Amino acid sequence: MRFVHDTLPQRVRFASGAAAESLAAEIAALGARRVMVVAGASARESADRVTAGLPVVHRHDDVVMHVPADVAARARAAAAERDVDALVSVGGGSATGLAKAVALTTGVPIVAVPTTYAGSEATAVWGLTEDSVKTTGTDPGVLPRAVVYDATLTLSLPVGLSVASGLNALAHCVDSMWAPRTDPIDQALAAEGVRALRTGLPLVVKDPRALDGREQTLYGAYLAAAAFASAGSGLHHKVCHVLGGMFNLPHAQTHAVVLPHVLAFNAPFAPDAERRLAAAFGSPTAVEGLTGLRDRLGAPRSLAALGMPRDGVAAAAAAVVAAAPADNPRPVTLDAVTALVRNAWEAR
Amino acid sequence: MRFVHDTLPQRVRFASGAAAESLAAEIAALGARRVMVVAGASARESADRVTAGLPVVHRHDDVVMHVPADVAARARAAAAERDVDALVSVGGGSATGLAKAVALTTGVPIVAVPTTYAGSEATAVWGLTEDSVKTTGTDPGVLPRAVVYDATLTLSLPVGLSVASGLNALAHCVDSMWAPRTDPIDQALAAEGVRALRTGLPLVVKDPRALDGREQTLYGAYLAAAAFASAGSGLHHKVCHVLGGMFNLPHAQTHAVVLPHVLAFNAPFAPDAERRLAAAFGSPTAVEGLTGLRDRLGAPRSLAALGMPRDGVAAAAAAVVAAAPADNPRPVTLDAVTALVRNAWEAR
Repeated sequence: MRFVHDTLPQRVRFASGAAAESLAAEIAALGARRVMVVAGASARESADRVTAGLPVVHRHDDVVMHVPADVAARARAAAAERDVDALVSVGGGSATGLAKAVALTTGVPIVAVPTTYAGSEATAVWGLTEDSVKTTGTDPGVLPRAVVYDATLTLSLPVGLSVASGLNALAHCVDSMWAPRTDPIDQALAAEGVRALRTGLPLVVKDPRALDGREQTLYGAYLAAAAFASAGSGLHHKVCHVLGGMFNLPHAQTHAVVLPHVLAFNAPFAPDAERRLAAAFGSPTAVEGLTGLRDRLGAPRSLAALGMPRDGVAAAAAAVVAAAPADNPRPVTLDAVTALVRNAWEAR
Repeated sequence: MRFVHDTLPQRVRFASGAAAESLAAEIAALGARRVMVVAGASARESADRVTAGLPVVHRHDDVVMHVPADVAARARAAAAERDVDALVSVGGGSATGLAKAVALTTGVPIVAVPTTYAGSEATAVWGLTEDSVKTTGTDPGVLPRAVVYDATLTLSLPVGLSVASGLNALAHCVDSMWAPRTDPIDQALAAEGVRALRTGLPLVVKDPRALDGREQTLYGAYLAAAAFASAGSGLHHKVCHVLGGMFNLPHAQTHAVVLPHVLAFNAPFAPDAERRLAAAFGSPTAVEGLTGLRDRLGAPRSLAALGMPRDGVAAAAAAVVAAAPADNPRPVTLDAVTALVRNAWEAR
């Protein structure tokens, strides 16, 4: 056992229906008097409601996916003009990401109110896009001081999007088990995330308006992000990155298709991960647990159906071998990866 | 699901045999140039060895259990005189506690090197004793910035003391499941702690010089402290506090005897805790897992054998009812607690 684990300071307030009270408590704790609310159009109604009691000096709705540099510049200028002393983001990864871009250069603290299962609120990772190139980095100053989870804000997230977002979180948990910087603490948090997501997601599909499924999924998404940010990106994310880049495949669906294949590939070489994941899935084996969940959620099963050409398998496998983490539990040979990608293509 | 969870900032470096390198890295990260080493006589040799490369301006060996106020005052004066900019504690709870007393009034950061399974290094709790009265408090400034775990430093801890200390950590894990401020994150960490301790402790008993058992136990002790500090003190600790105070029973042994009885008392009313603990023990039920472990470790089984008089049961039960946490999963009635204490007395 040998690891370095950095636990990052953050308060999590988890209380359904209580976002306004939770936010008020956190803004009071910061002593903030000039709040900037960052929320895109789709989260505007929720944002107005949960921030109604705060000393808001500016509401910023100029929110764009992947945080384009000009969008970040405008948000930073708005924060400076109004001399804001706290940022409240309400929304998904784009809103959180824009608040982080402001925090990165101004040091203004963030309180995040997530309305999706993206998980950015639990990490110190920021991203900015300029000329189609996304730059990411890590800075302790962009980690939200507090996260206000209120599952009622996720009730309107459509089932399809909820499942895609939840399976993305699940992929973070599974890949955390063998990622380059993984440690037993990450693995314990990731296993708890798997348990929450495999409990929550079927409930969301069964009844999208029921709170228990939403709560478990939101809690699982938090753990997934915390574990993944600490552990780093493992083989699964390398495979998906290669496939997405080569064939322009849809992000979430690619994750859903690929994950069982990477798990089946690594599990026999990672007995501790296998044990933790099987227990978290409540299943005899990790792969059975994951494929059973995927099928119950009606997630896609083949890369062919996502539009990847059959003759792309060889090139993809070669690129995966080149990109694979050096310390993956199973040696990433061309033959083995070719079989992995072919199986994912064929839904085998 | 409703909770507030404060994650506290701390780096954990876990590497057996590498305490000197780990310490050097952390002292460099702090930019410290005037280090005060706090280590009692029993840890002196280890402390000298692992701090040999540091810019030490003072070695403080005036370490006493429960941090008497005059001992703290002398350590604070020494730190002020030498203008120290970092504290390195090497030892058990007493050394860590004394470093915390200095940090509390000076703000000087601590790097802790634990040599027992006490767990104080993972909490922001400080304690001071004056005129036989112990005052405790919580202050973020006393939480060590970094903890350097090196299991080779625990190899010389006698088996009996290791088991007692490890079972104390196990009690922290179990009681965290239903303590007043518990939340799912605490419970996940506590369950991981149980898994590590039930794996590690039998290995320590089997071969006290083998590293794997020491590593698992040390890792479990860290998790136990982190979970317990966040969750607070539950029914088990109230029972032990009452019994210890009334009958002057030995601390660790009392925990070992009482824990299975509190678990059997609460588990039917705490299905989530039961599920988590049974899984962590790798046992059909939590109670079977715990009693099996206790028996394998040769831990004591009856309060009678620890010297508690039979006619003390009624008074103890009444005091437990008065002290019990309001939100214990099972109602703490006089009849039920009388049976619990009687069973623990009789080893039933």
